[in-house]
Amino acid sequence: MSVADIKLAHTLSVTVIRYHRHRRMGRWKPDAAGRLASAAMELYGEYGFEQTTVAEIAERAGLTERTFFRHFADKREVLFGGAAELEAFLLEGVLAAPADAAPIEIVAAALRRVDGLFAERRSFARRRQAIIDANPELQERELIKLAKLAAVLAAALRDRGIGEPEASLAAEAGIAVFRVGFERWIADPDDGPGLGRVMDDLFGSLRAVTAAG
Amino acid sequence: MSVADIKLAHTLSVTVIRYHRHRRMGRWKPDAAGRLASAAMELYGEYGFEQTTVAEIAERAGLTERTFFRHFADKREVLFGGAAELEAFLLEGVLAAPADAAPIEIVAAALRRVDGLFAERRSFARRRQAIIDANPELQERELIKLAKLAAVLAAALRDRGIGEPEASLAAEAGIAVFRVGFERWIADPDDGPGLGRVMDDLFGSLRAVTAAG
Repeated sequence: MSVADIKLAHTLSVTVIRYHRHRRMGRWKPDAAGRLASAAMELYGEYGFEQTTVAEIAERAGLTERTFFRHFADKREVLFGGAAELEAFLLEGVLAAPADAAPIEIVAAALRRVDGLFAERRSFARRRQAIIDANPELQERELIKLAKLAAVLAAALRDRGIGEPEASLAAEAGIAVFRVGFERWIADPDDGPGLGRVMDDLFGSLRAVTAAG
Repeated sequence: MSVADIKLAHTLSVTVIRYHRHRRMGRWKPDAAGRLASAAMELYGEYGFEQTTVAEIAERAGLTERTFFRHFADKREVLFGGAAELEAFLLEGVLAAPADAAPIEIVAAALRRVDGLFAERRSFARRRQAIIDANPELQERELIKLAKLAAVLAAALRDRGIGEPEASLAAEAGIAVFRVGFERWIADPDDGPGLGRVMDDLFGSLRAVTAAG
């Protein structure tokens, strides 16, 4: 048995002990956040966002309300918790773009990175959108999320030395493409081209639309 | 005295009688809405939006709270009551554009019409923006207003037979130009070019930005 094996065995035994201890205390739950999110999405879809309580979500997930609030600030965060991740992906994409890229190329590259985040989530995105479409308060929250993404993106472009109004216009154009592209991507009944492809086509359409002015 | 003169005289006398009746009852107030709006803007600027009450607005305007609520649904409507007018101007502009105009030309023409709405209001727009910038809830309301304008504009373009994604992209591009243009227009310390000129230049910048993709 090597040192590494001993370490692994120790780690495993600690994990096993923890598992049994927590199980005995009724608190060990694999991926509590994921189970709570699934339960919440089911209930929002079945009864509506407004009508669903945190107690019901916890009950369906076989967990407590206290556990819910350890993972989510409120009912809305189940739907909007991904915004921070989306923002981080976009910013990484802006940083990773080549130094000589034009503003719109940087934005397109950043959005292409976001594509990876959504690739396996089309059916989740669809269910989420249906819940949002049914509730004006959630629609407003979604608008605010997108507007904030545009502001963050514009700031990241300015950090790269891009001036105004180019930074703001490229960021707004990119978020417009994301918004329209996302809608088309989830509406596609054939689960056709991925979000990245859809957005690439839209950048082309936007170029044609603005060139006509 | 012609029939028209008699009618005019009658109308005037009724107006004069009404004037005196209302004055006697302490209720005749010229442009109550305008006085309330001015008082509200002063107080929002001096003490902040959140800290100002409707009672204080009414008091500064020399009117009652009841009169305030005859003209405004709440404190926010003083700042956002113009949204309906803005929407109406945009839609008129879309309808008035030549039949063979490209989508982005229709949007630009509609925004040029909005210019007339703002021409004499730069200092009002500046004070309003300062109040909004100081309050996250008002910033969200402003974002929602602009997103709704984009949606209304896209729908008006579709009504003119423009397909998707062109209608949505042209509308989003136009509102991006409006948003960025408005910011630049109120920030100009020299009260230079009007909003219409600023937006025209931005349509050119947007064309250059998207062409680089």
